[in-house]
Amino acid sequence: MLSQTTEYALRAMSMLAYSPHELTPTPSLAERTKVPANYLAKVLQLLAGAELIQGRRGVGGGYKLSRPAAQISLLDVVRAVTKIERIRTCPLGLANHGPNLCPLHRKTDEAIARIIETYENVTLQDLIDAPGQNMPLCDEKATTRLRVDPALRRR
Amino acid sequence: MLSQTTEYALRAMSMLAYSPHELTPTPSLAERTKVPANYLAKVLQLLAGAELIQGRRGVGGGYKLSRPAAQISLLDVVRAVTKIERIRTCPLGLANHGPNLCPLHRKTDEAIARIIETYENVTLQDLIDAPGQNMPLCDEKATTRLRVDPALRRR
Repeated sequence: MLSQTTEYALRAMSMLAYSPHELTPTPSLAERTKVPANYLAKVLQLLAGAELIQGRRGVGGGYKLSRPAAQISLLDVVRAVTKIERIRTCPLGLANHGPNLCPLHRKTDEAIARIIETYENVTLQDLIDAPGQNMPLCDEKATTRLRVDPALRRR
Repeated sequence: MLSQTTEYALRAMSMLAYSPHELTPTPSLAERTKVPANYLAKVLQLLAGAELIQGRRGVGGGYKLSRPAAQISLLDVVRAVTKIERIRTCPLGLANHGPNLCPLHRKTDEAIARIIETYENVTLQDLIDAPGQNMPLCDEKATTRLRVDPALRRR
């Protein structure tokens, strides 16, 4: 239901949020997010197209966030790779429905509204700062490595 | 976000719920749901595979619901065509995460929970019985036609 592409985009952005000022090479990102490299490359293109990340090719190249993690909501990420819009008029174009949605489309619109609500008020920075044992996507080794230099993350 | 296939499956099932005791031919269903016939045929196969509908080929053939509309939730329909499961363990298989989801996957799990919640307690019959001006998927002409014989729908 929540597409693979959406999940991968959220993983990639979460990981990039840990090192917002450095270019992360795609192979490294693929390894840490456990996303197939070819698939990830396409997801990164979508994210770059939505201006959430910026990249540089070649040796030393990679991707980094285009703006601070605190200014990128999870909804921004989801919207960069998939269409998620409230239903405003009858999707079948029925003239007598128009903006008066039928019960089926009212329900579908409700589901969409709830997804939007879940993702819109959470930023990538919120994920990193969330209390708890686990940091997004990080195994123990990576977590330790990332945690020793919090200043770098916040710079 | 909510896939085209999911939307089409919900449309098809809503329409079949209006005439639960008759076989509706696929071309007629395609026309009334405004779904491309080839695409609809595939969706119907998925719904039949999940035993929500049953069909017969040939002249006079088509599909009908396998059980009363009041016993088919929208979640049943959604689950017949797409995977929608709560996240129980780390999708990356990180050993130190396990069932303790990180903030990213807690949030994704929350979105999934909300979709499930929206669809699980509503049946196809609820859609038809919902008060309001519009019946699911029906234009004025069809609505009139369907409304003149409510006994048939409920039989």
